[in-house]
Amino acid sequence: MNLSPRIDAEHLWRDLMHSATIGATPDGGLNRQTLTPEDVRIRAWFTETAKSLGATVQIDSLGSQFAIFPGTEPRAPIAMGSHLDTQPTGGRFDGILGVLAGLATIRALRAAEITTRHPLAVINWTNEEGARFAPAMLGSGVHAGAFSAAYALSRTDAHGASLAEALAQSGQAGATPAGAQTLTAYFELHIEQGPILEQETIDIGVVTGVQGMSWFDVTVTGTPTHAGTTPLHLRHDPVLAAATMIQAVDALARADPAARATVGQLEAHPGSRNTVAERVSFTVDLRHPETRHLAALENAFRAALPPLAEARGCTARIEQIWHAPPVTFDATCLQAVGHAARLLGARYRPIVSGAGHDAVYLARICPTAMIFTPCQGGISHHPAESITREQAALGADVLLHTVLTYDRAQA
Amino acid sequence: MNLSPRIDAEHLWRDLMHSATIGATPDGGLNRQTLTPEDVRIRAWFTETAKSLGATVQIDSLGSQFAIFPGTEPRAPIAMGSHLDTQPTGGRFDGILGVLAGLATIRALRAAEITTRHPLAVINWTNEEGARFAPAMLGSGVHAGAFSAAYALSRTDAHGASLAEALAQSGQAGATPAGAQTLTAYFELHIEQGPILEQETIDIGVVTGVQGMSWFDVTVTGTPTHAGTTPLHLRHDPVLAAATMIQAVDALARADPAARATVGQLEAHPGSRNTVAERVSFTVDLRHPETRHLAALENAFRAALPPLAEARGCTARIEQIWHAPPVTFDATCLQAVGHAARLLGARYRPIVSGAGHDAVYLARICPTAMIFTPCQGGISHHPAESITREQAALGADVLLHTVLTYDRAQA
Repeated sequence: MNLSPRIDAEHLWRDLMHSATIGATPDGGLNRQTLTPEDVRIRAWFTETAKSLGATVQIDSLGSQFAIFPGTEPRAPIAMGSHLDTQPTGGRFDGILGVLAGLATIRALRAAEITTRHPLAVINWTNEEGARFAPAMLGSGVHAGAFSAAYALSRTDAHGASLAEALAQSGQAGATPAGAQTLTAYFELHIEQGPILEQETIDIGVVTGVQGMSWFDVTVTGTPTHAGTTPLHLRHDPVLAAATMIQAVDALARADPAARATVGQLEAHPGSRNTVAERVSFTVDLRHPETRHLAALENAFRAALPPLAEARGCTARIEQIWHAPPVTFDATCLQAVGHAARLLGARYRPIVSGAGHDAVYLARICPTAMIFTPCQGGISHHPAESITREQAALGADVLLHTVLTYDRAQA
Repeated sequence: MNLSPRIDAEHLWRDLMHSATIGATPDGGLNRQTLTPEDVRIRAWFTETAKSLGATVQIDSLGSQFAIFPGTEPRAPIAMGSHLDTQPTGGRFDGILGVLAGLATIRALRAAEITTRHPLAVINWTNEEGARFAPAMLGSGVHAGAFSAAYALSRTDAHGASLAEALAQSGQAGATPAGAQTLTAYFELHIEQGPILEQETIDIGVVTGVQGMSWFDVTVTGTPTHAGTTPLHLRHDPVLAAATMIQAVDALARADPAARATVGQLEAHPGSRNTVAERVSFTVDLRHPETRHLAALENAFRAALPPLAEARGCTARIEQIWHAPPVTFDATCLQAVGHAARLLGARYRPIVSGAGHDAVYLARICPTAMIFTPCQGGISHHPAESITREQAALGADVLLHTVLTYDRAQA
């Protein structure tokens, strides 16, 4: 079977390393939050590179960039994409690989003089990370109708600047109404951001769906008293209450191998070393690939925590601040990914994404699937995030052949 | 038995409420950190009031204020005192009661036309709280030779200003070398800052000593990974490790009713809700009234924590940052306090202070004791800190009669 075309692995790696210089942190990571000067630089580079490959670049009202390459038939494009923004202590590959692999796919097709039936699009979605503007995935979310543009544009950063203001100031607001560009399908290559593929020496994850997620803010309130004067049995110490609550959250999730529970933010207030705290705030992130099980986990969590606070003479307030139901990707798209992986001789397995991605929203409006590559130690959202040149190239090759397979298979 | 003189309870309360207007916070507390404009205002009020009662006011090189009232014999003064500075979220009585009760004692003696054999001193020590400049109790510490003046003056606040600069800017540095003023004895009236007296409906605590204290910074380091993608059994989560470690600290101290253990500062880093934390930092404050038991508690703590971190695949670093041995107050001074409490018909009991006070350092250089009054709910270092007019007056009356008793009893 003829495997050509293939990705130019050296060129892709060079592009990734170039991206890694824009917003580089001293520890080898990236801090390139959305619409900062660093993000504007990589966006300009994206536009220029896409144009040099023959693209027409559209920018929508949220700043999302669509590089569109003509096909032989008047169809809606098959899209590849992800995001170029990062966490404040982000790595060099999260999101970036998916966008640059899209450009690498176009480059490979040009080199092989192949024009697909469908036009192809490479998309850089605005504010995927949610680090500067919450919630995450605002660009793809508005595109898919999950949020209104007005809502997204009104979101503010830590300094009170709205997304609308940030777009205007950085000159990144485009003329295309968000959502106007219809797509035939959407494929997103991404690093796994977890350890499973690496641990099992698998090359490619065929991402069948995304875990449902439920985010909570928990506040435990006790009585602030002097650390030296109050006997232990007379205290209402929210730090001790929170310690037992955090262990309970973990124990609840640990009962089910598909479940995830994480306390990532944790802080005692007022934070004086010689005062029993008045209040402890922590976050809880619950995930499960199945709606029914996620709901059961949420219910168990909501029931378990307040009595643990009360046992320490404290009170607990639990507030759900976000919920995303589980997503199942499109069967035909998944078949194309599996076909491409087989063509390339890759070891692959189905996997559920534990992280949210732009593909979650795209799945609402068009056939969608994702492709995972392993990443070192499963580390992500951290300067140590790392993949090899070969992993990048194989992931991009699978993306390329997935798009070719899907393009040929459509009626 | 003749109980006169007595404190003018109304005047004392009026003074306390006047103090409560200088640096008042909207929630009813005080923010009057040392040498701020608010502190300078209350210091000026102290000088003016003391002078109107016949004092000579000396200020030492650390800014501590000594209001000295003549006696009939050429002796070193018997001193009363505490501090007028507060925590950033402090209450209206911590420290303040001890200074204003000293002025109330002088007022009562003048009204009764009594002149003691010893001169009397009312002292306002600089920077007791340690909230602006760490460590705490710099004024009394230098006076007693626990720190050099040069060390204390070089301490800086959060904005980098040194104590020397703050003294010069506020015009509060005095000409008297710190430590030059010898004292016959030192008595400090203070709110308990704990719940014991209130719970036992006791009026007066005869403070026999101060707990030893040992302060630690603990850092637990794990592996930062994505909250959605990393199965629970593959995580090295420092939040879960810290939760078990915090519970272990509590359990160790709870085995001994005289022991105290507090985790007052607690924070996960980097503090992202969808990332397993890389690091958790927390403080541990261990106290015990007996040297031997405090050492045993410290050793048990140092031994117990690292294995708990390792059980979660994390590492723990434990750093002792401060240590103060237990203090036992002077038997003769304590007898005078007990005698005064009996004279006044107060319900009293011996109690060990869980908090540090200026009296801890004074005890190194002269006979010293403390008197406690109950405070509502044991709450302190908080806007809700509260005592009644009657509690303030009874505490001050005990101070007055303690000083009279001690004055008469000296050879």
